[in-house]
Amino acid sequence: MGNKITSRKDDYSKWYNDIISEADLAESSDVRGCMVIKPYGFSIWELMRSQLDKMFKETGHENAYFPLFVPKSLFEAEEKNAEGFAKECAVVTHYRLKNDPKKKAKLIVDPDSKLEEELIVRPTSEAIIWKTYKKWIQSYRDLPILINQWANVVRWEMRTRLFLRTTEFLWQEGHTAHATKEEAIEETKLINNIYAEFAEKYMAMPVVKGYKSESERFAGAEETLCIEALMQDGKALQAGTSHFLGQNFAKAFDVKFADKSGKLEHVWATSWGVSTRLMGALIMSHSDDNGLVLPPVLAPIQVIIIPVTKSKENVNEIEEKSNQIFKSLETLGLRVKLDDRENISLGYKLNDSEVKGIPMRIIIGQKELENSKADIFFRHDMSKFEVSFDEIPKKVLESIEIIQSKMIKKSNKRLTDSTHEVNDYDDFKKLIKSQSGFVIAGWDGSKETEEAIKNETKATIRCIPEDNDSKGLKCIYSGKPAAYKVIFSKSY
Amino acid sequence: MGNKITSRKDDYSKWYNDIISEADLAESSDVRGCMVIKPYGFSIWELMRSQLDKMFKETGHENAYFPLFVPKSLFEAEEKNAEGFAKECAVVTHYRLKNDPKKKAKLIVDPDSKLEEELIVRPTSEAIIWKTYKKWIQSYRDLPILINQWANVVRWEMRTRLFLRTTEFLWQEGHTAHATKEEAIEETKLINNIYAEFAEKYMAMPVVKGYKSESERFAGAEETLCIEALMQDGKALQAGTSHFLGQNFAKAFDVKFADKSGKLEHVWATSWGVSTRLMGALIMSHSDDNGLVLPPVLAPIQVIIIPVTKSKENVNEIEEKSNQIFKSLETLGLRVKLDDRENISLGYKLNDSEVKGIPMRIIIGQKELENSKADIFFRHDMSKFEVSFDEIPKKVLESIEIIQSKMIKKSNKRLTDSTHEVNDYDDFKKLIKSQSGFVIAGWDGSKETEEAIKNETKATIRCIPEDNDSKGLKCIYSGKPAAYKVIFSKSY
Repeated sequence: MGNKITSRKDDYSKWYNDIISEADLAESSDVRGCMVIKPYGFSIWELMRSQLDKMFKETGHENAYFPLFVPKSLFEAEEKNAEGFAKECAVVTHYRLKNDPKKKAKLIVDPDSKLEEELIVRPTSEAIIWKTYKKWIQSYRDLPILINQWANVVRWEMRTRLFLRTTEFLWQEGHTAHATKEEAIEETKLINNIYAEFAEKYMAMPVVKGYKSESERFAGAEETLCIEALMQDGKALQAGTSHFLGQNFAKAFDVKFADKSGKLEHVWATSWGVSTRLMGALIMSHSDDNGLVLPPVLAPIQVIIIPVTKSKENVNEIEEKSNQIFKSLETLGLRVKLDDRENISLGYKLNDSEVKGIPMRIIIGQKELENSKADIFFRHDMSKFEVSFDEIPKKVLESIEIIQSKMIKKSNKRLTDSTHEVNDYDDFKKLIKSQSGFVIAGWDGSKETEEAIKNETKATIRCIPEDNDSKGLKCIYSGKPAAYKVIFSKSY
Repeated sequence: MGNKITSRKDDYSKWYNDIISEADLAESSDVRGCMVIKPYGFSIWELMRSQLDKMFKETGHENAYFPLFVPKSLFEAEEKNAEGFAKECAVVTHYRLKNDPKKKAKLIVDPDSKLEEELIVRPTSEAIIWKTYKKWIQSYRDLPILINQWANVVRWEMRTRLFLRTTEFLWQEGHTAHATKEEAIEETKLINNIYAEFAEKYMAMPVVKGYKSESERFAGAEETLCIEALMQDGKALQAGTSHFLGQNFAKAFDVKFADKSGKLEHVWATSWGVSTRLMGALIMSHSDDNGLVLPPVLAPIQVIIIPVTKSKENVNEIEEKSNQIFKSLETLGLRVKLDDRENISLGYKLNDSEVKGIPMRIIIGQKELENSKADIFFRHDMSKFEVSFDEIPKKVLESIEIIQSKMIKKSNKRLTDSTHEVNDYDDFKKLIKSQSGFVIAGWDGSKETEEAIKNETKATIRCIPEDNDSKGLKCIYSGKPAAYKVIFSKSY
């Protein structure tokens, strides 16, 4: 049973698109740069969202909802602090359509419905949220505010790729307000740690935690923490960011609070987000040339049971047994599916379950019935394991954790194997050119060096790891004493 | 401890706004007609959403996500079938802002960024979804498609009210495609029954199920089922609708499937939705002049524990006991909060918990500690019940169901008491004028009669109940034989 997936070796980029298409995750829409997230893809996103949401709530955060639109003037207030913020965005200028008097069944924009002030479809909600926080914050008693929002945002991207970069995308954006600088910095770290834990434990995707160089930082932030993951093609993917915003937004929107002594102070802020981009990271972290591979804790279907009834013999017994196994697994709280679709061949079903990355598969046919045994097929390494019917529930349940930990181990090994520390610029260039992962090197801390390296190799500083130790190290480019030991890589 | 809530008697409309404001549910934003849903309000919406989502999934529906924007031309395709669909909507015409060359720190819309085709911010997703379904549907094997989407939508409303009618609102929209008419009609009914069950069981809000008259129907639908609830001011509120769309959208977007014999047929469709309007319905169904009243199954905080430590005596013991009760309730899976905020008076805390509609409250102070007993205060009827410390977990858990069922009973009684059947048009007018609820009467089935009644009394046909029996009945207006026995009311 062949599938239509290009191999990674032949065309990595096409492989990525093929996985998304064949596993039925998403597709491009008729609206430029916007995607349709299909039910199977969306159910993975729901699992990711639900786990992250739980982690945010456990650390005291609440959800809220702010308007989709941002009046242009609010954008200007923010703009003063964040020069260089992308201005490619969807602009609403009118509020009515009318029938075209010249053409039947056609619509035109009613010129009489021009808005006094244009509205921007939110590219992020900082502006509208800080305008709102101004109303909510008077005293230290109103702090901290720890709010998160799950929302759609729009950035008018010129080149888009499903999940990785789309005009509209889904994300969560946290916006917090604090009485002290220390507390805001703590919050920034707390969230970056949650992101890292989520990536490592649930996505089985190890990340490097660290902070961004000034030129890679979010405009308006004083410090940007991030998690960086490494894809199978040796390119880095920024998977989440957590910004310490200092008092910048508080000053732009004039948000002050009275401290215990009654003195007025600007509040301290953070913002942080992950998006449907994580779907792209998940796909590229584990999938192989046979299709999607999913860590079991994020798999919408963890086990699939396929009854095989070729001849008319024992049809009832096979269906009954399949159903019984299905129910025994469902009772354990597993996400299980019985694929008893008619008019669909076994070959198609097998391929479908592999392409979709369903972690475990059990076929129940005549042979299995006779022996009271069945194979559990494991998608992540395409291996099989024979188990007696009685033992299936126990073994499947155990396997969830075993597969998860094997996948984590494999990813960790890939990250370790693809991380190289170098001292020589020629070696550096060779490594970057061969796209072999993260390259650790000394950096003198200057923008000029950063830019020169970028121009010469296309590699950027992905992050300055938290535990960087540059003592005695020299800058890979300038040869000056290194200010930091950093991670360079090409990136998405 | 006074609160700032206007009484229903004095000004019902102001009462509604006061509840929303004092219970911290939502507020108007700087964007015309758009609201900010505050954390406490949003957590109620999350509970509603999560229960509905569960009910949709249990009946075989899946979630997906479609683009925020609809190209104008798709709107035109739909428009042919749905003349009269509101054209008041947000129109995106440009995709870039730039710095104003004439004014520092000001932004203008870049005229070079005009879109070739305008994009409409979805007022509903039928058009973009049916354009997508066309790609997904070839054969009967692709059917049914049972998809739901949780999303934000925008309709340019001139008069807005928090939750009840806002320019942007949150909703779910189900869009299904079927091979047969019968199956689509069954789906329409299934969903309307889910809506009714949700309203009655979870919101404790009884509804009348029925279908809409032609003039009240969704443009483009062949039949609109609905649930209608009755608010405390005697006005009806349409709480959910489920549309049988026939083959209208399939024809507009040319969506055909090959049946088992290979014959091409247009597919049959439904669409259905409920929105944040349900928040308005929930607020108005149960709240009183003291603030919000919530059915316990939808209360973000079901029990609040307030330790009272006036003197320094026994502070530790009181805190310890409060904490112990808090934990015993949390262990039971209850949503419980310990209000141990400092610098906030007991009076403020008591008022806060009442205004926010927290179903149960337990105060632990010196007296309670001495007697090993405490009162459980019930918000829905402002009653108290003394319980020994040991019995608190059991009693609180039991009370969840007891309060829920008492609230349902009370709402049912209000609906019954406010529903009147009349045969005389003068009685009819009197009842409508006094705004005393649902008025059941015969209707001859003509648009003219419906409109005349609307013009003379402002009452509309809320729905034609499923079990209407018009045998021998005369039309309340024309005196002709009644075609249906229907429900009239003023409405939101």
